[in-house]
Amino acid sequence: MKTVNCKNIKITDGFWKAKQNMVNNVTLKSVYDRFKETHRFDALNCTWKEGDPDMPHVFWDSDIAKWIEGLAYSLNYSENDELEKLADEAIEKIIKNRDENGYYNSHFLVTGERFTIRNEHELYCAGHLMEAAVAYYEATGKKELLDAMCKYADYIEKVFVKEKSAKFVTPGHPEIELALIKLYEITGENRYLELSKFFVDNHGNNSVDQALYPGCNLIYNQDEMPLRERTTADGHCVRALYLFCAMADLSYIYNDKELFEAAERCFMNIVDKRMYITGATGSTCHGESFTIDYDLPNRDAYAETCASIALAFFANRMIKLNPDGKYADAVEKVMYNGSLSGISMDGKGFFYENPLEIDIDSNNVNKCTDGGKRFPITQRKEVFDCSCCPPNVIRFISGIGEYLYSHTEDTLFVNQYINSEAEFEGITVSQITDYPSTEEIKIKLESSSKKYIALRIPSWCKAFEINKAYTLKDGYAYIEAKENDEIILTLSMPVTFISANKKIHDCAGRVAVMRGPVVYCLEGIDNGKDLNSLRIDIKEKGKLSEREFLVPNILLKAYKEPENDSLYFEATEEYIETKIKLIPYFAYENRGETDMLVWVLKK
Amino acid sequence: MKTVNCKNIKITDGFWKAKQNMVNNVTLKSVYDRFKETHRFDALNCTWKEGDPDMPHVFWDSDIAKWIEGLAYSLNYSENDELEKLADEAIEKIIKNRDENGYYNSHFLVTGERFTIRNEHELYCAGHLMEAAVAYYEATGKKELLDAMCKYADYIEKVFVKEKSAKFVTPGHPEIELALIKLYEITGENRYLELSKFFVDNHGNNSVDQALYPGCNLIYNQDEMPLRERTTADGHCVRALYLFCAMADLSYIYNDKELFEAAERCFMNIVDKRMYITGATGSTCHGESFTIDYDLPNRDAYAETCASIALAFFANRMIKLNPDGKYADAVEKVMYNGSLSGISMDGKGFFYENPLEIDIDSNNVNKCTDGGKRFPITQRKEVFDCSCCPPNVIRFISGIGEYLYSHTEDTLFVNQYINSEAEFEGITVSQITDYPSTEEIKIKLESSSKKYIALRIPSWCKAFEINKAYTLKDGYAYIEAKENDEIILTLSMPVTFISANKKIHDCAGRVAVMRGPVVYCLEGIDNGKDLNSLRIDIKEKGKLSEREFLVPNILLKAYKEPENDSLYFEATEEYIETKIKLIPYFAYENRGETDMLVWVLKK
Repeated sequence: MKTVNCKNIKITDGFWKAKQNMVNNVTLKSVYDRFKETHRFDALNCTWKEGDPDMPHVFWDSDIAKWIEGLAYSLNYSENDELEKLADEAIEKIIKNRDENGYYNSHFLVTGERFTIRNEHELYCAGHLMEAAVAYYEATGKKELLDAMCKYADYIEKVFVKEKSAKFVTPGHPEIELALIKLYEITGENRYLELSKFFVDNHGNNSVDQALYPGCNLIYNQDEMPLRERTTADGHCVRALYLFCAMADLSYIYNDKELFEAAERCFMNIVDKRMYITGATGSTCHGESFTIDYDLPNRDAYAETCASIALAFFANRMIKLNPDGKYADAVEKVMYNGSLSGISMDGKGFFYENPLEIDIDSNNVNKCTDGGKRFPITQRKEVFDCSCCPPNVIRFISGIGEYLYSHTEDTLFVNQYINSEAEFEGITVSQITDYPSTEEIKIKLESSSKKYIALRIPSWCKAFEINKAYTLKDGYAYIEAKENDEIILTLSMPVTFISANKKIHDCAGRVAVMRGPVVYCLEGIDNGKDLNSLRIDIKEKGKLSEREFLVPNILLKAYKEPENDSLYFEATEEYIETKIKLIPYFAYENRGETDMLVWVLKK
Repeated sequence: MKTVNCKNIKITDGFWKAKQNMVNNVTLKSVYDRFKETHRFDALNCTWKEGDPDMPHVFWDSDIAKWIEGLAYSLNYSENDELEKLADEAIEKIIKNRDENGYYNSHFLVTGERFTIRNEHELYCAGHLMEAAVAYYEATGKKELLDAMCKYADYIEKVFVKEKSAKFVTPGHPEIELALIKLYEITGENRYLELSKFFVDNHGNNSVDQALYPGCNLIYNQDEMPLRERTTADGHCVRALYLFCAMADLSYIYNDKELFEAAERCFMNIVDKRMYITGATGSTCHGESFTIDYDLPNRDAYAETCASIALAFFANRMIKLNPDGKYADAVEKVMYNGSLSGISMDGKGFFYENPLEIDIDSNNVNKCTDGGKRFPITQRKEVFDCSCCPPNVIRFISGIGEYLYSHTEDTLFVNQYINSEAEFEGITVSQITDYPSTEEIKIKLESSSKKYIALRIPSWCKAFEINKAYTLKDGYAYIEAKENDEIILTLSMPVTFISANKKIHDCAGRVAVMRGPVVYCLEGIDNGKDLNSLRIDIKEKGKLSEREFLVPNILLKAYKEPENDSLYFEATEEYIETKIKLIPYFAYENRGETDMLVWVLKK
């Protein structure tokens, strides 16, 4: 199976068009401005010297690269001369300041010895620059950065594979592995693929690479065993997921069953045991890590925006290996929840962490104890010191088309439902839908080179209708593909109350409210203080109300106990009825600092 | 009102006799042995020198002192020649190794400059030695340590008040304030009282004392304002409570209304807003501190054993100032729950922290992230590096008689119900009861110099009977006192389900099970894994079963949801009935490492 490049897909209206417009009109420029202000763009000049302020940080290149990549995806469907010019200028600086080997790193070129410190994101930055180069070339036809990055990749191959002169064998922050595959795909140069395979095969499988930080164990960097032996997703969450992406890609290209099975075990471990209902992963701030099965605390969840996005990257690669709807289900969960929560409704503010509960009182505990307890911040920021998430959200939204379709020789798979037009490999297909606000999706198949069209039936969906005969298999409804046909899929989307596995102790006795793929939450601004005192009766139907945040809000009856000022008192069976309003989780903390709760007590 | 020295009261049978026997037969010797093994007793020789192993720790003297004090209380009712000899030897070393001023500190005599570092527990150790001296003299008539400590107190007065030559004004770890009052009471020397008042008046009220540790704020040590202005209990919990003890004592002796009101505000802040249902306080490990109102997390509760005991000390002093049952209610809460949980049923093992939930899985999170999340330990230890709690439990149990009675000119107050015989100030009174296992308390008043006897009606008690006419006021039933009278009080003690204030977010939707003053808990060893998935129907009556841990266990019907292996799934209204067994909270973790839960979901 193949996936389809986002440049072949035009989002035409609805939810994701609104998000893409926001990114084009606001986010790209805002993130550029913040990166400019924080000297990230200036750093590309490589003029910093000892004693100067604002030493280029070791991961700044990756921020710029992801911004360029995100811009590139947006240029596929929307011109933006001003920003393209700014990207050209940045690229020019990168090209100009490379050394004679093609090496570029705005930190190491002005500070220290290259390829000596494994934990310093050096190859991670290189990888992001390669991804940017590929995307920018595809969008603009401009090949300069791509050529430069090919030369850089050749140099990396020389240092790491031929000379083995680096002080480490595999990257401390994986990323370049998946980037090299993109470089291989666009250039056809096998050595980039092999370099990627070299890194993947050697990860956790050599005696040179040691734990990255003092006091840090091998698990943090997925070094405790060869990747092919993995059975669980462990260590730094984003690093792990980027690695798994490369494992999926390589197993696809090399038809490597062992590598696929390892990736599949990790995927299943995540979605069965280590994933928030929002698609977020990596529950602890300590090492930004996966922890153990079912350890998914809500209030101090880490749940990094980048990790959610990386899970979508990984899942979308797994689609190519196994025609099962579970992968696109995971992508959808991330799309509407754990990734989108990372950006504000105005397109300017970001969350790095995405907890499933905000309790302002808990955060205030720190004010009286000189730190100590750690909770995610409660107000979005426009830029972070470690600002990986903002440009990651940009490239995710700009490139959302990537997730729509995949195809085998005889079947077109529709993985996501987004109002769009697409053309690729003899197929012309469009979707007309207001999903996920409404239930109906019209799919117009103008021309098709395939025998079947397979529509994903989301795992959250308990009832659906299709105006055609279909066969259901592994989460897809297979329909005979006819040219100029209109398929109408209706996914029943009632307000649903979801329980968590009893092993997730922090969700005990609680339900999350979902409608379709969208997870909802309570906010204090709508529902008062002490959100934890509210109880939902799951017999309630729920009423849809205005689309305050692109999809309808939900109104529900709820119940609370009679007021009692005592600290402890005899329990009562009495409940007082009240009304609550739920908003989509992705829109939390957009109206000032307020309490928030996803998992609500069940009456 | 006056309280009654524990030496006048003999515990004769029942719950506390069992605990005192345990302390006499096991704990005193076991703690001695552990302190001996860890070089605490050897340190008294003051022979350590630079380069030697096992430098005497700055707070070791206080460990020894509390052990001597606890032994002294036990000698009031039970001879123990072996341990008395060991105590005599320790005392001899202390006396012998004092300097010419009477100064003694096994750390500073061999290491550094005295009275220069406020945070170093120097006066805290002195205070504990003074308490030990008073108790040992009262129990044995041996006056050597008392005389030595008087000389030491004189020297402290000279340094801190007369010469003002110390580098700080008030102790970094308060304790000596309350000890000096004991010294005043036993010697009648007013200067010890005035020295105590000097420290209390100057605490948070001078420009010399600064924050104790780098990065630490003034709140930690109750230095952010003068003590008389306090409205809340803040900072290091044990330090705060020891200070409040002295405030209560001084307000009593000096009839200082302002100081009483400050102490009362702090007391009410604690019992109304900052106390666990177990009587434990100081919810965070960060600074071992009080935090903010209603911040009472269960799983990562700090809830130090010493803090519970210190709350009893404080509350029992408040009794003298205001004839209100609320103080003895707090004492009782601590007695049967948050303090007693600090010692194992075999008398050898201790908890420093007393969480209200143990989730072994959560503790295991740390194994994969190199530390990070912090939870209390799950297995009792016989000694800690900072081993303040074990000897504190000893002196609390040995001296439990202290809490039974208080009296004004015309009324004898019965504050706690314990099988006992007492004689003091013309009163001969005994209690015959199996409380808190059973409901009836017989009080035999043989002779009485008082007009009334006032029986505390615990705030947990919703129905009681007395075989005499009574008037109820502020938590006490006042009865005419007649010689040779037998009063029978019956405190109805059904299994009760307690809710927490909705502002305690971690108890939302949950109930605690109590019977009388005893808080109960579920343990995994009885009830399986995932205790959080169990729900209690508060309509259930509960059945008492065997006295596995001195008081009856409780059997209850409970409910859980049908098994479902999915991570997330549609909520159901279906419940499966099951049986659960609850044990007294104070007995948790006595049968190996297992999950534990106080606050159980309410159906």
